[in-house]
Amino acid sequence: MQHNKRKIFNDPIYGFVTIPYDIIYDIIEHPYFQRLRRIRQLGLTSMVYPGAYHTRFHHAIGAMHLAMEAMEVLKFKGHHISEEEQKAVAIAVLVHDIGHGPFSHALEHTMVDGISHEEISVLFMEKLNNVFNQKLSLAIKIFKNDYPKSFLHQLISSQLDVDRLDYLNRDSFYTGVSEGVIGVERIIKLLNVKNDQLVVDEKGVYSIEKFIVARRIMYWQVYLHKTVLAAEFLLIKILTRAKELAMQNVQLFCTPALQHFLYNKLNDKDFANNPLHLETFALLDDYDILTSIKVWTNHEDVVLSMLCNMMINRKLYRVEISKTPFSDEKIESYKNNFISQNNLSYAEKDYFVFTDVIENNAYNPKKDSIQILYKNGHTTDIGIASDQLNISSLSTPVKKYFLCYPKE
Amino acid sequence: MQHNKRKIFNDPIYGFVTIPYDIIYDIIEHPYFQRLRRIRQLGLTSMVYPGAYHTRFHHAIGAMHLAMEAMEVLKFKGHHISEEEQKAVAIAVLVHDIGHGPFSHALEHTMVDGISHEEISVLFMEKLNNVFNQKLSLAIKIFKNDYPKSFLHQLISSQLDVDRLDYLNRDSFYTGVSEGVIGVERIIKLLNVKNDQLVVDEKGVYSIEKFIVARRIMYWQVYLHKTVLAAEFLLIKILTRAKELAMQNVQLFCTPALQHFLYNKLNDKDFANNPLHLETFALLDDYDILTSIKVWTNHEDVVLSMLCNMMINRKLYRVEISKTPFSDEKIESYKNNFISQNNLSYAEKDYFVFTDVIENNAYNPKKDSIQILYKNGHTTDIGIASDQLNISSLSTPVKKYFLCYPKE
Amino acid sequence: MQHNKRKIFNDPIYGFVTIPYDIIYDIIEHPYFQRLRRIRQLGLTSMVYPGAYHTRFHHAIGAMHLAMEAMEVLKFKGHHISEEEQKAVAIAVLVHDIGHGPFSHALEHTMVDGISHEEISVLFMEKLNNVFNQKLSLAIKIFKNDYPKSFLHQLISSQLDVDRLDYLNRDSFYTGVSEGVIGVERIIKLLNVKNDQLVVDEKGVYSIEKFIVARRIMYWQVYLHKTVLAAEFLLIKILTRAKELAMQNVQLFCTPALQHFLYNKLNDKDFANNPLHLETFALLDDYDILTSIKVWTNHEDVVLSMLCNMMINRKLYRVEISKTPFSDEKIESYKNNFISQNNLSYAEKDYFVFTDVIENNAYNPKKDSIQILYKNGHTTDIGIASDQLNISSLSTPVKKYFLCYPKE
Amino acid sequence: MQHNKRKIFNDPIYGFVTIPYDIIYDIIEHPYFQRLRRIRQLGLTSMVYPGAYHTRFHHAIGAMHLAMEAMEVLKFKGHHISEEEQKAVAIAVLVHDIGHGPFSHALEHTMVDGISHEEISVLFMEKLNNVFNQKLSLAIKIFKNDYPKSFLHQLISSQLDVDRLDYLNRDSFYTGVSEGVIGVERIIKLLNVKNDQLVVDEKGVYSIEKFIVARRIMYWQVYLHKTVLAAEFLLIKILTRAKELAMQNVQLFCTPALQHFLYNKLNDKDFANNPLHLETFALLDDYDILTSIKVWTNHEDVVLSMLCNMMINRKLYRVEISKTPFSDEKIESYKNNFISQNNLSYAEKDYFVFTDVIENNAYNPKKDSIQILYKNGHTTDIGIASDQLNISSLSTPVKKYFLCYPKE
Repeated sequence: MQHNKRKIFNDPIYGFVTIPYDIIYDIIEHPYFQRLRRIRQLGLTSMVYPGAYHTRFHHAIGAMHLAMEAMEVLKFKGHHISEEEQKAVAIAVLVHDIGHGPFSHALEHTMVDGISHEEISVLFMEKLNNVFNQKLSLAIKIFKNDYPKSFLHQLISSQLDVDRLDYLNRDSFYTGVSEGVIGVERIIKLLNVKNDQLVVDEKGVYSIEKFIVARRIMYWQVYLHKTVLAAEFLLIKILTRAKELAMQNVQLFCTPALQHFLYNKLNDKDFANNPLHLETFALLDDYDILTSIKVWTNHEDVVLSMLCNMMINRKLYRVEISKTPFSDEKIESYKNNFISQNNLSYAEKDYFVFTDVIENNAYNPKKDSIQILYKNGHTTDIGIASDQLNISSLSTPVKKYFLCYPKE
Repeated sequence: MQHNKRKIFNDPIYGFVTIPYDIIYDIIEHPYFQRLRRIRQLGLTSMVYPGAYHTRFHHAIGAMHLAMEAMEVLKFKGHHISEEEQKAVAIAVLVHDIGHGPFSHALEHTMVDGISHEEISVLFMEKLNNVFNQKLSLAIKIFKNDYPKSFLHQLISSQLDVDRLDYLNRDSFYTGVSEGVIGVERIIKLLNVKNDQLVVDEKGVYSIEKFIVARRIMYWQVYLHKTVLAAEFLLIKILTRAKELAMQNVQLFCTPALQHFLYNKLNDKDFANNPLHLETFALLDDYDILTSIKVWTNHEDVVLSMLCNMMINRKLYRVEISKTPFSDEKIESYKNNFISQNNLSYAEKDYFVFTDVIENNAYNPKKDSIQILYKNGHTTDIGIASDQLNISSLSTPVKKYFLCYPKE
Repeated sequence: MQHNKRKIFNDPIYGFVTIPYDIIYDIIEHPYFQRLRRIRQLGLTSMVYPGAYHTRFHHAIGAMHLAMEAMEVLKFKGHHISEEEQKAVAIAVLVHDIGHGPFSHALEHTMVDGISHEEISVLFMEKLNNVFNQKLSLAIKIFKNDYPKSFLHQLISSQLDVDRLDYLNRDSFYTGVSEGVIGVERIIKLLNVKNDQLVVDEKGVYSIEKFIVARRIMYWQVYLHKTVLAAEFLLIKILTRAKELAMQNVQLFCTPALQHFLYNKLNDKDFANNPLHLETFALLDDYDILTSIKVWTNHEDVVLSMLCNMMINRKLYRVEISKTPFSDEKIESYKNNFISQNNLSYAEKDYFVFTDVIENNAYNPKKDSIQILYKNGHTTDIGIASDQLNISSLSTPVKKYFLCYPKE
Repeated sequence: MQHNKRKIFNDPIYGFVTIPYDIIYDIIEHPYFQRLRRIRQLGLTSMVYPGAYHTRFHHAIGAMHLAMEAMEVLKFKGHHISEEEQKAVAIAVLVHDIGHGPFSHALEHTMVDGISHEEISVLFMEKLNNVFNQKLSLAIKIFKNDYPKSFLHQLISSQLDVDRLDYLNRDSFYTGVSEGVIGVERIIKLLNVKNDQLVVDEKGVYSIEKFIVARRIMYWQVYLHKTVLAAEFLLIKILTRAKELAMQNVQLFCTPALQHFLYNKLNDKDFANNPLHLETFALLDDYDILTSIKVWTNHEDVVLSMLCNMMINRKLYRVEISKTPFSDEKIESYKNNFISQNNLSYAEKDYFVFTDVIENNAYNPKKDSIQILYKNGHTTDIGIASDQLNISSLSTPVKKYFLCYPKE
């Protein structure tokens, strides 16, 4: 008795991933989901870590796999999860990121206004729910936390959700930042439920500590790596300039989908009112963006072509970091120095010399609460359960100021 | 005393890769080499193995790293390699694939005529040699096997070259086909030189056997996987159709670089005579191809748009395999069946229903000769050294016939 | 609802191993099973591979873990396995090797006569069955293949049993012979049942090929490595000499348990008739043997002390290998050469110079039959399913002759 | 040109380890070093982590391997290390632990008085120096920090010495406590020298943070795991009792070497004055101890036989942990409870019920100083370089009180 749609995927991290339900297979086959094959999980991070080309497609399937494993563990420990609930959680995890655009962060700052990728995800889910005869209804309910069993929602979205368990693991795997590797298998085996909350068995205190440290390392070594940020800032500047030119009706090489978002001003209400926007968004991926940037290296607008050349030939900004803000004088002097060497207007220099700030705390006791379950049935926050202060000290946020300017 | 250009790359496979020479850094920084960031090592294989997005950029650096390690081993074993020779081999390995276009196989069958990626690699090397003050001269000599020490060339190109050591390892890592993993570190530690030939110490017999088996597995599981082939055949059909339309002056969405190769008929002599072709080739990568295909899904030519939709939404050909050729009757009946359902001309059906053949032998004793060095100084071919017949039996070529046709 | 006895073991290979049933926990706690902590899986192999100190205790638990995983896979594929059956298989796998003595091979040739470790295993199982209120009855039935569902027995003992899946993997892990690593997870996910036989899904052909090759490599690189054999031959010679001296009532330092087997002549009937022998056997482990050998290095019998010194200070025999038998002349000349240097009697020289033969075939199509299950429901032997002849060629047995003699 | 003694060892962690010098091979062959094959690195830890049977032999070779790699890195970065110095460091690392007895901690508390394993190591080194024609002189000098280049000594003994780099890695590998894995390769590649001090390049800040966290985890999860401690306390009690009985001339089964240390009172001066003690020590290993304990399970002394049964059949103490000392009342009540159930004298109960305290701090800024080297040439302590307070908070020592008593 073999199910036609119960395919097996190779996953370099988990070995094999089995498709557990027909509906999971059907969603994967849908063009909305296939699009995720063309959206990298880590955007421009490959500029620094040349292995980091993994996609949101692979991540979504990996997270779904972890969700299935986690639910098997919880069931083994005696917590009831019905077949329908298990299927719904698997679906919800699979599509949780389906609304991500290419280089979401950059895009949300430039092209689309006032609509987040989470909101677009919900729009896609609802469309898929129609396509597949309301088979996603329970999944959407759990995703939105509108279902009584909270711990199911927490598997999808919480401090210990399978989303971050997968992406931290996957990102450290593909970047090769082995300090970021977390013991996913162990953490999952130690998950438990107490008072309808997802908790971790006492035995897992050190695994959780290491998880928090690993996450923090991934932040500073990868997600907030200064050269990665330099590349992302550069992309924002490019798209900002392109949008600026488009608004002036300057002609730009574009794919049809990119043209739609470059030459129109769109916000959340537009998405809600006109299905064309969502359909066009479903056609937009990394390839539209990078191909256009490659062509723009020869655009007659000097600012745009300079920026695009910096991207394509990897002449990224030089970045200075400081724990305190950079003085206006310093910034001004860098700008002036840059202008003197390039024939640009004063306004245009902001594309090349600018400052920004990044903030991160490894553990936020308010929102990052992870509960440890003791053998006696009591639960305690990991910040207290950990016998050293280092967890709580991790909660002090760290601020870093960046000053970007071109390499000569 | 830290060298400015002696950067360290993260590599998920080898951990850290150190840039050993300034010239290596300079070549990596050059746009010709940066282009390899945008060319996947395994083309469309990610359609089947969703982790396989690694690039030729990463492979080239990995192979250079293995070359450095191999030369350290040989020097430890008492073989003289001068600093200049070592640098030249590192360079040659780094640029050995620089002439690869996007989806080389498909491209060479459709766009460019009579010029191989190896020839284009040499053209690029010579240009780089001019850019970098003849610093690549010795590398080119060794690459072309015009240098007395043959074993240096064999590190770059032979049955045991660092190219295949890296790609087999890297491809199995990223596809997750763990049966293809080879013990690279071990093989390299067992390399030796005898009579100016690269050989393997006696102790390595089993490692080499496993290497040959692993390579064979990679061929059937990955490189010649039927769905991978289906995707590659589809790409060839798409590009053939696009070229056909272009030759009829039908308008197609194109990046400038793709337009150059789609609307011109070019061969090896054109490349030799007009540097513009090489310069334009240097701008062509995976993004030009896939972006255009995505736009062509809406082209008015039914054949082109159907094929492109099959690619983008992963509705690949169904593939039948046989050890003997398919009968003309069978092929004809599939074609007729297809035509009856689609409003296409007879000639156009060849884009959708066709047969092809693939041949592979895991070990070709004529060209694949790997010599084992015994403690007494004698060398023997691995096919004889292996105490079982399985190596020699691996040399029987296997032929597989494919019949492709659309799903439903 | 947490089970007190559902402990978790750390396993460097599988991460965590969960104790699935209370009875499994109880058996593990029993002194018969705890004894396996003091018996190395690979005997003297650590003389060559210094990481190979893993025990039969760890292997038995690992194999039990794989059995549980395999049964989950089969159940997912729709094959019925009752809770009681699953428990019985887990038990049977756990205790399948419980009758192994220290350095079984050597022991069976010298101390105990006409009783194999399999027979002793059954004796132990029956005793445990009494201790634990007949809870092992079904396990013993399946172990002895007296139960209708053959595929359950095949999980315990067949070409694809979890015993060899675990030991091949574990032995390659701890020896560091990475060529022997097999894709256990993959093979298990591809197991299936057809006509009550354990089979492998079509997709697993290459995994099985690699498994057979890896097993062969483990045989030649580890199990039959000439220095490992030299150590094992040496142990047999030591125990033979000790037994010879004991039979002459020469006094030897001994633990009580070793004394029992050294100074008594015991065979299978003795074991059956007198429970004391089994109880004493349950006290015998690697420590008795090696400690005594260490003390015997100073024994007044020159043969014994010389042999023991060779073992303790790792001055193992030198070994010559040949594909044909060694001539009597050659052996005689080695013996004479040795005698001339040492003041030993003619009979005693056989302890130092001797020949032996070892035979191995990687795949025996008669007993090693592994069936591949095709999508159309047919099954075929792997030797036929494999599209190359190399599997069938692996079935040719390889004979190697050994000639052992002391280093100078 | 192949060196006869330049053998290759398989190491599951590093793949292959090459013997770099003839003298290294000769030391490994010596019985003093071969003894380390019979001394486990982690003593009784295998009672909790059944994979932890790795030996001091393997660790010493692994650490030597890392030392060679570290020196290659330092040389690549331009620091001069002569061939003689490199050889001396390799030797010193190889023999740094050669004086360890079986279960050192327990032994030093019971059998040998006032002499540490470090002192015994030096005694062995000096003997080996005589055996090998003063070839260890420079190694001993560097080992004792009597050589001008301090950073060479720091490779052998400091916060970042290859000893702990190897053992942390190896212990986490064999226990399967994957949270303890450290990025050895990365740390070694980031080592540098500044003002004759071993430092870490700026890029390594996070690797060092993770290293400190991993070390802390290994302490609490492995080295100070409460059941591991219970086993070690039990061993101390057994040896104390055995010594007590020996001093009363009660007869105990013993190997000759163990008898020597059990029936004589020895201290550091005895070792210095009479070479017999060192020679006998060289014969003592894990096997003497465990074999004897196994035999003592049937000794007529009830205390001894009870304790030994607890060890052999793994009925370890139950352990309670507290952050504050246990009250005398509580301890007394446990003792009384135990006496009432067993026919033992009041004095004897201390063997079964007792309290102890363990203290650990993950990072001691005074002795654990690790210096980070910035690109501008300055160095800073990791506690300051780390942008979070967690490192410095790790330096708060943690105290845990233990109360041990038998299960029921």
